[in-house]
Amino acid sequence: MKLVIAIVQKEDSNNLQRAFVQNDFRATKLATSGGFLSQGNTTFLIGCEDEKVDDVLKIIKQESRAREEIATPHMLSTGYEITQPLKITVGGATCFVVPVDEFKRF
Amino acid sequence: MKLVIAIVQKEDSNNLQRAFVQNDFRATKLATSGGFLSQGNTTFLIGCEDEKVDDVLKIIKQESRAREEIATPHMLSTGYEITQPLKITVGGATCFVVPVDEFKRF
Amino acid sequence: MKLVIAIVQKEDSNNLQRAFVQNDFRATKLATSGGFLSQGNTTFLIGCEDEKVDDVLKIIKQESRAREEIATPHMLSTGYEITQPLKITVGGATCFVVPVDEFKRF
Ligand code: NI
Ligand code: NI
Ligand code: NI
Repeated sequence: MKLVIAIVQKEDSNNLQRAFVQNDFRATKLATSGGFLSQGNTTFLIGCEDEKVDDVLKIIKQESRAREEIATPHMLSTGYEITQPLKITVGGATCFVVPVDEFKRF
Repeated sequence: MKLVIAIVQKEDSNNLQRAFVQNDFRATKLATSGGFLSQGNTTFLIGCEDEKVDDVLKIIKQESRAREEIATPHMLSTGYEITQPLKITVGGATCFVVPVDEFKRF
Repeated sequence: MKLVIAIVQKEDSNNLQRAFVQNDFRATKLATSGGFLSQGNTTFLIGCEDEKVDDVLKIIKQESRAREEIATPHMLSTGYEITQPLKITVGGATCFVVPVDEFKRF
């Protein structure tokens, strides 16, 4: 048994949670404030069998890896008009896989 | 030394915290948002000696295991009157016991 | 690779976060409610190489160890005037160092 602790950007957390449910993984979302990514992040705890860790990591990568996006007005609350397409990096995930000595559900 | 990470339903968290204090366990309550249980849940971190893990799990089971309750009006904010007793499942705990290489208090 | 889980008092969390950044450690601050220290606490997750654990612990000790302070008016919201210097204990950190089987950044 392993515990995957995943820190993702807040904007990806709903999609990621949905993907965990669709793939029958039980994930718990912790409330997170601030962090190393400017727009805030969210921490997930996912318990899974050793042989499922790669599947969990694959889902996290799919839903929340760092990628470039063209900024759209809703992303910029500056009041300035966008006259040129603006590339920004969004997403990004940090994952720790930790051993579990014992797992209990009551 | 072990770290017990326990995810319980929000409604049980105050009773559980009181039980940890009464039994001289130091528990930290993390703020948790949403999760796999519809009414929100809370995560506790409890550090303890290896031989105390069973006591910690026993307390968690006692205070927050899944059980059936008869729904009372304060649980239902629908505006409908209850004409029949309604059984609902409340509580439930998920516990990970994780090894600790080093423990420091400053 | 290790994961350091550090629980510090809320009042020290900004200084600690700044110290982590200055020393090139990536730390994630979880929102924490209540806990065993009366004024609320904050949990940090810090991933680091095995040989850097002592540096991480040193920073945590430096920024958030328990120490005595003379209470100043902003600390007391009682409405009473302070007529004598009042020593109070502030700070304090609890740190768990946990093994990491796998670490991924996406
Ligand atoms: Ni295992
Ligand atoms: Ni031990
Ligand atoms: Ni290592």
